[in-house]
Amino acid sequence: MDAVAAGSGIHQPGITTPVQEHLHFAAYDMMARTTREDLAELLADWTYAATRMMQGLDVSATGALGGSPEAPPDDTGEAVGLPASNLTITFGFGPSLFDARFGLEGQRPPGLERLPAFLNDDLDPLRSDGDLCIQACADDPQVAVHAIRNLSRIAFGRATIRWSQLGFGRTSKTTAAQTTPRNLFGYKDGTANILADDTAALEENVWVSASEGPAWLAGGSYLVARRIAMLIETWDRTRLAEQDRVVGRDKGAGAPLSGGDEFAAPDFTATDASGKPRIDRRSHVSLAHPDNNGGIRILRRGYNFVDGTTDLGRLNAGLFFLSFQKSPDRFITLQKALSTDAMGEYIRHVGSGLWAVPPAPSSGASIGAGLLGA
Amino acid sequence: MDAVAAGSGIHQPGITTPVQEHLHFAAYDMMARTTREDLAELLADWTYAATRMMQGLDVSATGALGGSPEAPPDDTGEAVGLPASNLTITFGFGPSLFDARFGLEGQRPPGLERLPAFLNDDLDPLRSDGDLCIQACADDPQVAVHAIRNLSRIAFGRATIRWSQLGFGRTSKTTAAQTTPRNLFGYKDGTANILADDTAALEENVWVSASEGPAWLAGGSYLVARRIAMLIETWDRTRLAEQDRVVGRDKGAGAPLSGGDEFAAPDFTATDASGKPRIDRRSHVSLAHPDNNGGIRILRRGYNFVDGTTDLGRLNAGLFFLSFQKSPDRFITLQKALSTDAMGEYIRHVGSGLWAVPPAPSSGASIGAGLLGA
Repeated sequence: MDAVAAGSGIHQPGITTPVQEHLHFAAYDMMARTTREDLAELLADWTYAATRMMQGLDVSATGALGGSPEAPPDDTGEAVGLPASNLTITFGFGPSLFDARFGLEGQRPPGLERLPAFLNDDLDPLRSDGDLCIQACADDPQVAVHAIRNLSRIAFGRATIRWSQLGFGRTSKTTAAQTTPRNLFGYKDGTANILADDTAALEENVWVSASEGPAWLAGGSYLVARRIAMLIETWDRTRLAEQDRVVGRDKGAGAPLSGGDEFAAPDFTATDASGKPRIDRRSHVSLAHPDNNGGIRILRRGYNFVDGTTDLGRLNAGLFFLSFQKSPDRFITLQKALSTDAMGEYIRHVGSGLWAVPPAPSSGASIGAGLLGA
Repeated sequence: MDAVAAGSGIHQPGITTPVQEHLHFAAYDMMARTTREDLAELLADWTYAATRMMQGLDVSATGALGGSPEAPPDDTGEAVGLPASNLTITFGFGPSLFDARFGLEGQRPPGLERLPAFLNDDLDPLRSDGDLCIQACADDPQVAVHAIRNLSRIAFGRATIRWSQLGFGRTSKTTAAQTTPRNLFGYKDGTANILADDTAALEENVWVSASEGPAWLAGGSYLVARRIAMLIETWDRTRLAEQDRVVGRDKGAGAPLSGGDEFAAPDFTATDASGKPRIDRRSHVSLAHPDNNGGIRILRRGYNFVDGTTDLGRLNAGLFFLSFQKSPDRFITLQKALSTDAMGEYIRHVGSGLWAVPPAPSSGASIGAGLLGA
């Protein structure tokens, strides 16, 4: 079995894979004076190690213990004895990788640029962007952390971590069998997400087709990451009716305020006795809904995060939003539509990144081989 | 069932409870101008909410959804639909609680003082100490986070979070059935820990007896927290033989370097062919071992942590050490013995705290009722 392609054919794992419980996401920058050959070697080494780790193996054949006692072990060892825990490792290439350094200018996909500034952005450059990214997801956090740690170590002298983010408790439903999880505002999140077995919707919204991008990206996608800080204490002091109005759904069942159950289609024309829309036009569900955005859907795969406490004693918490879509402009269209989102009062976008996600390598090849001609 | 006392009789849960997969630990300070009555009311409210949450219930009877839509819900909602996940909530009282503010000076246990400075300490005051602490452990991180968030919210106007810490992947074996987990140095950790069913060892080392402390603390314990940053990248570049020497055990099986299996007693007199001790005298296992410390044992219940990445691109990671012992001087003795620990080169103690952990309240009473006379 080709583990890198496991379960998704020509696509990388970790996109339509049923979303796991834990995330460690890392963005990397190539080091100064590295060459195209360094990049190709790094991607080959990463592919080798990722393929092994996704099978529950040590990072190399000698691993955590089998090498010489007079050398540092290849594997850092904290996952020894743990199962693979559904680990998936997904690689992405950022806009900056296509500058003059590696001779890749000619192969930059048209839309692979830094995302434009959006209203409510308060971005920290140290939590944004990166030449490369790795999304590691697993049902055991120690397994996800082990993957990022060992891939970072393999990158030594070639690439360094620019920033990384841990997350837990998925915020998106990706299979019919999963109950819809709740985000840290206490609301079900991802009710209308694209499901992993909805091949038509995936082709329509997620996968880059051969005619839509450079050949090296066919079967791939674009990954957007947004670190969205939630103003937890402010939200928690807001009355329930206002929380429901902001979201556009009720907190208990997750049903649209126009009626029905969680999976009922929202009726944006429904009005109450006084003639007011039952779903506020500025609600999150209204502004983000495909019906109000030319049918655009994206595959969300986010996680909650709590990074301890700020110096004011507030929870440093929120949503680490991850989405896959067949073009960056689809995300940009939706995010612009959300500029008047009533939820904007309770959130801040503090980190951001965009990466092209190549297809899985063919057996024996390395991730990005189509791009680098390796 | 009295959930606060569940499974441990007169002792609080979360001490001998089989250690769960996830931790959210928070330290609180009482706000300025709060009174003894405020403290008593806070502890009563916390007891009520903790008892409910440990049963998998919302924080109050009206909960996340049952109140008026014109009021903020009592419960923040992100754990709705999730099981209790073996949640335990454990409360502690710090040295500073016994200053002049609350009239408790006369009831301070003799050893409840800030821990002394130790070699290799590099303590951040914003990650140390606190009037009160809460240890929330659960097998689902969202459940542990929900507990701390809602208890912090209940404290509004009375106490604020001073600092908090999340952790994952227990670092101590607490039942015979658990395999020994690995810390982020890749080594089995907690092999010789006190097990939850070893009543004699618990009486000898962990529980404060009626003759050993103030009456309000009988059946309680003392909790030490230490945020121990691991210099991951330095460690990872160290050869295996040196890692083994520093720990005093082999990385694979976790056996002492004097021979045998993981659970073999270390033989500190064993020598190799050249006459050198097989277990280095400065190894961690040698310096911390009960045989070399007058028989002192402590109950460890720590967690690994990874708080993302530093601005140098290094993992901000380590061990959040938690231990329970019947007197603070037992921890102090062990920590002083570790001042020449060969591991000191690879770790920094960056946070520290000590709290007295009262017994569980009797049915219908609040935590700390014995202290406050409530």
